[in-house]
Amino acid sequence: MVTAIIVAAGIGRRMGSELPKQFLSLKGKPILWHTLARFQKCVAVKEIVLVVNPFWEKESRMIAAEFSKIVNIVYGGGRRQESVWAGLKEVKESEIVLVHDGVRPFVSESLIETVVEGASKWGAVIPALPAKETVKWVENNIIKKTLPRHSIWLAQTPQGFKYDVLKTAYIKAQTEPLEFTDDASLVEQLGIAVRVIPGEPQNIKITTPEDLQWAESLLLRE
Amino acid sequence: MVTAIIVAAGIGRRMGSELPKQFLSLKGKPILWHTLARFQKCVAVKEIVLVVNPFWEKESRMIAAEFSKIVNIVYGGGRRQESVWAGLKEVKESEIVLVHDGVRPFVSESLIETVVEGASKWGAVIPALPAKETVKWVENNIIKKTLPRHSIWLAQTPQGFKYDVLKTAYIKAQTEPLEFTDDASLVEQLGIAVRVIPGEPQNIKITTPEDLQWAESLLLRE
Repeated sequence: MVTAIIVAAGIGRRMGSELPKQFLSLKGKPILWHTLARFQKCVAVKEIVLVVNPFWEKESRMIAAEFSKIVNIVYGGGRRQESVWAGLKEVKESEIVLVHDGVRPFVSESLIETVVEGASKWGAVIPALPAKETVKWVENNIIKKTLPRHSIWLAQTPQGFKYDVLKTAYIKAQTEPLEFTDDASLVEQLGIAVRVIPGEPQNIKITTPEDLQWAESLLLRE
Repeated sequence: MVTAIIVAAGIGRRMGSELPKQFLSLKGKPILWHTLARFQKCVAVKEIVLVVNPFWEKESRMIAAEFSKIVNIVYGGGRRQESVWAGLKEVKESEIVLVHDGVRPFVSESLIETVVEGASKWGAVIPALPAKETVKWVENNIIKKTLPRHSIWLAQTPQGFKYDVLKTAYIKAQTEPLEFTDDASLVEQLGIAVRVIPGEPQNIKITTPEDLQWAESLLLRE
């Protein structure tokens, strides 16, 4: 069985908007609605745990009401790993867990399926894209070095894990004070190999007004 | 005096299109036209050297004919550094040289000016954006490590240099067999500090159909 944890607990300060970005409208529906619709449609996913911000519970529940796979709605914390942990605690029977950003509404069903298969086979898998730009290590506004571009990949979600692997990683993380920006980082800390599969260019995380503009144009094309 | 070398010698295999990407149409004009228009308008730039692909010389010259600042059109080579070198050899009097991708049509005049100022002040400067995604070092499809996101920047153009600095770097590069994906890399090899200034989210390099789609939506907004 496969549970998808959809993290939509952000407050969206980066967008320059009062409304958290998961609630911004794309073609008449909130971004989070589009994201949930992708997982609802994907047959490989059995249930969804939705992590929301308590200040926006009402809005979140209104969107969630349309999706029958949602088995639980939980409150997220201020940091990403607190939110994922809140969702992970609600996973009861699944042997595979996916974690996905609520503001990545363009993930394809086939990518979700491939991540599920990869998680079963390897235990831990993420989609990522190779960096297109030259990648610089910068300290104090000075380039320290240019990194070998073909070794540098930009992580996407859904990230997929065997339940035991992710749970062990999160239990270990309870004792670590560091901030993690994705789930794979925690699993890497355990010394477990995390596999990379090709992500999708359109599977963007909506964090700036430019992203929202691009998202609108992608939806018009569909 | 400031010369901008605009590199448009690519053959565009990545786009899945016969036409090199600098000739693809954005709102009725080739991408390269839009790029040249930005430098033509920017008062800080005195002259432009355009580097083209010999197989597409006629098309390139037709576009170039509209821009009075273009003082020379030269043939580029198969590798990026050969193209820039071909352009650099035509720079006669300028103490500042900018190098810009022909397929970055959205650079603002103010960014060009800021790069010119930075090059005068520091000798070598590039615009770049911090990575928004979690950045992974990947080897053989396995994550080797997660890089500290706030140290990782993605390079843009125009990159600006004192003429002597860039020329010295390119002369040194003649004896090196390595492939470089930007000009700053060569200058870094000399042990010269390259300064990073904030790039622009809309200053994208058009290399995929998704980029072209986004570019269309940016132009519609303008």
